[in-house]
Amino acid sequence: MTHGEIEPQTEQPGVRAAAGPGRWHDVELMAYKNDDSAPFRSVTRQVLFSDPRLGCEWRYFEVAEGGYSTLERHQHVHAVMIHRGRGQCLVGAVISDVAVGDLVFIPPLTWHQFRANAGDVLGFLCLVNADRDRPQLPRPDELATLRQNKAIAQFIDAAA
Amino acid sequence: MTHGEIEPQTEQPGVRAAAGPGRWHDVELMAYKNDDSAPFRSVTRQVLFSDPRLGCEWRYFEVAEGGYSTLERHQHVHAVMIHRGRGQCLVGAVISDVAVGDLVFIPPLTWHQFRANAGDVLGFLCLVNADRDRPQLPRPDELATLRQNKAIAQFIDAAA
Repeated sequence: MTHGEIEPQTEQPGVRAAAGPGRWHDVELMAYKNDDSAPFRSVTRQVLFSDPRLGCEWRYFEVAEGGYSTLERHQHVHAVMIHRGRGQCLVGAVISDVAVGDLVFIPPLTWHQFRANAGDVLGFLCLVNADRDRPQLPRPDELATLRQNKAIAQFIDAAA
Repeated sequence: MTHGEIEPQTEQPGVRAAAGPGRWHDVELMAYKNDDSAPFRSVTRQVLFSDPRLGCEWRYFEVAEGGYSTLERHQHVHAVMIHRGRGQCLVGAVISDVAVGDLVFIPPLTWHQFRANAGDVLGFLCLVNADRDRPQLPRPDELATLRQNKAIAQFIDAAA
């Protein structure tokens, strides 16, 4: 969901065991973003695999109850699988309920946002190309256009 | 675990819902390999995401009870997360028990094999670079060298 701030590194061979729901041994729990200008609430980030030989990075994001990721878009695509909990996602003009195992594809330059349901976390695996552009935030006029769709306005307001 | 036989295709935007354990709507259940010369037992393959803009393919393999993937190696790396069930994996000279959530990295030219525990399936997510080489099977002399390690010999025999 955000441009990687850490350098890709060669992975160690073999197994890193799960260490509880949404946590792994030898995987650092990080801030979702280091950029204060992008609005979000209660999201953590973990980089599961970033070996440059993969061509992509495999990350895990977890949105806590009442939290939401940044509403943004970018040229690079996202391939997502819900890993924990329940929530909703906005992809373009479509809002969907999502639960464990569901797959989500986010095409280039498509506005998207994830949020956890009340009483739930929303944890999701997210693949990105290792070579990718920085996310764009909606300008005021773009937000106004998005808000012309009442369902999207409601989604954005619920997440704000 | 095998070279993709299907052409990468642009993904449709939005959600494809889970359709039960280890199955998804609009994801085809396929044979593990189309190549009869590679030994394996009771493995299925599903391609979850193969959009060329990702730089990698995200696949799901499921090994049924008593099944095992091919013992093989290749230049490309694997990034794996166990998604369902329990089993064991061989990575190089190390045999590990694996369960849901565990991460496994397989470096270049490293012999590897997955098998399900008795009474269990082993389902795993597996990332590969979209641009990758074909797997190599062990030659008789390479198998003999692997078998000099008693634990590996036992693992290979149990899986054969």
